[in-house]
Order: sequence, then C-alpha cells, then structure tokens
Amino acid sequence: MKFYDCATAPSPRRVRMYIAEKGLTDHIETVEVDLRGGAHMTAEFRAINPNCTVPVVEADDGTRFLSTQGCWRYLEAAFPEPPLMGRNPAETGRVADLEWWADTEGFMAVAEALRNGTPRMKDRALVGPVNYAQIPELAERGRQRVPRFFARLDELLDGREFLAGDYFSVADITALCVVDFAGWLKLTLPETAANARRWHAAVSSRPSAAL
Amino acid sequence: MKFYDCATAPSPRRVRMYIAEKGLTDHIETVEVDLRGGAHMTAEFRAINPNCTVPVVEADDGTRFLSTQGCWRYLEAAFPEPPLMGRNPAETGRVADLEWWADTEGFMAVAEALRNGTPRMKDRALVGPVNYAQIPELAERGRQRVPRFFARLDELLDGREFLAGDYFSVADITALCVVDFAGWLKLTLPETAANARRWHAAVSSRPSAAL
Repeated sequence: MKFYDCATAPSPRRVRMYIAEKGLTDHIETVEVDLRGGAHMTAEFRAINPNCTVPVVEADDGTRFLSTQGCWRYLEAAFPEPPLMGRNPAETGRVADLEWWADTEGFMAVAEALRNGTPRMKDRALVGPVNYAQIPELAERGRQRVPRFFARLDELLDGREFLAGDYFSVADITALCVVDFAGWLKLTLPETAANARRWHAAVSSRPSAAL
Repeated sequence: MKFYDCATAPSPRRVRMYIAEKGLTDHIETVEVDLRGGAHMTAEFRAINPNCTVPVVEADDGTRFLSTQGCWRYLEAAFPEPPLMGRNPAETGRVADLEWWADTEGFMAVAEALRNGTPRMKDRALVGPVNYAQIPELAERGRQRVPRFFARLDELLDGREFLAGDYFSVADITALCVVDFAGWLKLTLPETAANARRWHAAVSSRPSAAL
C-alpha cells in the first residue's frame, strides 16, 4: 500500500495518526506531496487524485481512496483491529456523530478562517482544482466559531476519557487535529477548559500524535 | 425506534430514503419536526438534539444519533442488509469517497447558496443553535459551484448505473438529494448531462425517492 501524505498538513495527519493507531505504519509506503510547492496541482498528481488533495491511500491492487473518509473506511474494513470507529452498532453511530461534529464545527471553521484570511492562500479559499476568491467575512466567521468548538469539546469530555467514552476513536483524531490546527490561528484551549486540556495532553502523548 | 424527520427538508430525506431502502419504514415511528415553524429551536427539541437539526434516529434503548452520518452508520451496523455502504473493503472506501464528495461539493454548495441568499433565512447562515449573519458572496459562490457538481456527476456516471458501480448506495442518496435540492435555486441538470439525467430518472423512480 501507499499513503500520499504531507508531513506539515492537518488533513493527512488524520490518516497518518489512524495508520499508526492500527499498527500499519511500517506496512505502508509514504509518498510526501509538497503542498507548499504546489505538487498537488500538477498533472502528475491530478492523475492520482483529480481533487488535488491529500490524504490518498492506494491499495495493493492500485485502487485509490481520495478522502479522509474513504481512506479510513477502506482501512477500517480491511484491518478491523483495533476498532477505531466503534465496537458495536451504537458505538459506530456515536463515533460517526462525534467525528462529523468535529469535522464540520471544528476542522471546517479553522480551514475557513485560514484559507480566507491568509495572503498566501489568495484565490485558494476552497481545496480542489478550481480557484475561488477569499471571502474576508468567512475568515472572521471561522475565527468566531473556534471558541464555541472548544467550549463544546470541553462539555463533551466531562466525565469521559475520550470523546466517545472509554475508547480512543477517529473522533479523537479529528478533534486533536482541530485543536492543533487552530494553533495556526493562535487560538488555543482556554485555561477554563479543564476537561479538554486534560484530554488534549493525553491524546497528544500517544505515539501516533508525534508522527 | 423513532425517526425525527421534516417531510419537506432535504437533510432528513437522506435518512428517510435510507430507511426505506432498508425496508425499515414500517418499523420506525416517524416524528415530524416543523422546521418552518421553528420547532427545532425550542427547548423541547434541544433536549432531543442540542444541535437543533434533523435527522435524528432514536434506538429502542433511547440512544440517539444526531447527524446523517450517525443515523446511517448506526443503522448500517444494526441492519446490514441490503448493504448501502459497500459490500467489501474496497467498495466501502469508494462509497465513502463518493458520498463525501456529494456532501461537500454538492449538498454544502446548495445549502450555502440558499442559507446565505434567502431573505427568510436571515441570520441562519449555518444550521445549529447559534445565529450567524448571511454572507452574500457565499451565496454567489454556492451557485457557481453547483454546475461544476453537475458536470462532475455526469463524468462519474459515464458507463456506470450508479455512482459506485452496479449497486445503489448512500452516494446515490446524497447525490439525488443534491440535484433535487438545487431545484430550489432553479438550477437543474443540463440537457448535455446525459449520464446524470439517465441516472436521475432511474433513482427518482425508486419507491424510496417518493417518500
């Protein structure tokens, strides 16, 4: 298998961590894609992923998965242990809810703030092959949403070791990547968010978080 | 089980269709939530779903799933037949890729156009408990993205009965809901999109699409 990654980018980090939690790191060849240098926009990379994004996972038969969701779902079905998306139907639904929440309320808010507010991302307000102009109000809205994400994260972790309960899941992966990605905006978990800070220290100490 | 629905809304339609495709319609009690009347913003409904959204699925033990992804994943694990999210690891990853694409490139583009451009949605630019002001440029960007979604949908359906191949999946559900939701903007599949039009007629004729 191959994993198209970019070591500094938050999106492929979600799959990089997942691969490490599955114990698959040494079984997958990593191909670094230089996003800063524009390698994802080249004809060569478009032939791999027409969406011009990483992560991409390529199975041994050449089949490729082009989104975080696609990479995760393929790997979860092919390598079920340890389960990172729930161990029974109720957990499976709960993890999907929480992961979706962290993605839409957290990851997208930070991404909108950065992509619409950073001069070097001019005309790159959305990922993908098409250029879209930045919308300054969207950058501002993204920044406003991040503290609300932090507050809700803290509530959700009240009395829970991990987001879904007593087991680590993809919901924790996405939420950790959101918190660290928000650091790019200089937005950090407030001192008062004791549950979220305890959780952040714990998940950050996992070997998978250091990759 | 209970299903919190709104008969006229495109988001719960994704779960309504899914429930019908599973043959579960007669086994789940539907609770209609009057979104136009603001029933989703009441204290009563917030106790059910603090995100103030439908769909919600409630299992027999009272456990609730609060997002389309959560509802689907719970039901797919609890009622595997017929499989609507892939029949093996490669299909599972492929369906997740396609569904994610239809959701982010299609559903979100239409939703952004409507929520940011419709006078009656003033300050409701995002779903959820918090009000956000409309951003007119985001409405315009949403409208620009829809024809690109249609064009890509047509390419993806070239030589394929359904989005993932020869089997109906949640990717078809989301894409169908996007095409019909885009009708609210008076944006329709162009005459030239022969593959997408053939597919749209076929999936629209399924009994689940009429509910």
